[in-house]
Amino acid sequence: MERLKERILAEGAVRAGGVLKVDSFLNHQIDIGLCCEIGREFYRLFGGEGITKILTIEASGIGIACLAAQYFGVPVLFAKKGRSLNVDGELYVSQVYSFTHQTTSEVYVSRKFLHRQDRVLILDDFLANGKALTALFDLVRQAGAEAVGAGIVIEKGFQGGGDRLRAEGRRIESLAIIDEMAPGSIRFR
Amino acid sequence: MERLKERILAEGAVRAGGVLKVDSFLNHQIDIGLCCEIGREFYRLFGGEGITKILTIEASGIGIACLAAQYFGVPVLFAKKGRSLNVDGELYVSQVYSFTHQTTSEVYVSRKFLHRQDRVLILDDFLANGKALTALFDLVRQAGAEAVGAGIVIEKGFQGGGDRLRAEGRRIESLAIIDEMAPGSIRFR
Repeated sequence: MERLKERILAEGAVRAGGVLKVDSFLNHQIDIGLCCEIGREFYRLFGGEGITKILTIEASGIGIACLAAQYFGVPVLFAKKGRSLNVDGELYVSQVYSFTHQTTSEVYVSRKFLHRQDRVLILDDFLANGKALTALFDLVRQAGAEAVGAGIVIEKGFQGGGDRLRAEGRRIESLAIIDEMAPGSIRFR
Repeated sequence: MERLKERILAEGAVRAGGVLKVDSFLNHQIDIGLCCEIGREFYRLFGGEGITKILTIEASGIGIACLAAQYFGVPVLFAKKGRSLNVDGELYVSQVYSFTHQTTSEVYVSRKFLHRQDRVLILDDFLANGKALTALFDLVRQAGAEAVGAGIVIEKGFQGGGDRLRAEGRRIESLAIIDEMAPGSIRFR
């Protein structure tokens, strides 16, 4: 998506440790016009798939998922992070390993809101090593629902998570894939 | 807002400790049609105020803020929770005391995204004792910006935070104010 790539080039800041800061328009301050266009692009890609629910993860996926969901006419469900209190098995829970913090954390959704009949589109702002996305696919699998695919705003292609998931047969649609980056230089796939 | 009150009566579950669960449409699963209507109602209330930015707090305020922001045509800024790394004083930081956990935590925004010239509308899903909202007003004050008021989806009137802020001269517009609740019974103001 050209307008997105232009904004990444104009405002993205590459920091140590493979961090790309895009907090002026995507994950701290949110440019609503741009994110609506992102939502329409996801609808162009997945609108014919009979999606019944959009799944994302707190916090920065929520805005993008809600704006996109308007075009699909379906509810958003956001997975919560942190320690789950899985009373009476009322949750689907999955684990995410963080390379940055070298810790494993839990993500979960209520069983009430994911069902066998659901056709689920997963949306998120970033895809790097793919651990969070893998956990979201796992939540959908636990519910017996169909994960149609994932729509990602920015994929850090050099971290390999997207290509690994594609090799497993997942449909992953990223609106900008970065194959190389360094301070002052970003190269898209 | 009648449609909101009907949903609270139909789906809200009152739990011990003054907890109202509305996770089927507001803060876990999100009903996008309802939340767009909520956004239009905030625009009806504050659309004439020359708002330049909407401020909310992660995580469950983000969806409502993004959907509302479309009608205002302004960006959303969401305050982050947790321990701030305030390198070079690049953040505005405020404190929130949690009665539930009896702990003080920090909320913060980047100084880059709040300016003296801004006219800020604060939006959030819940208002109870008002501690989080007070911290958001404090962030706006630190930036020297103008806080026009706050739009709240559900106010727990019996916890007093809204009335305390109104008594201080703040404009607080809540779309549903609950004055009493118990399992099976919710009374609106």
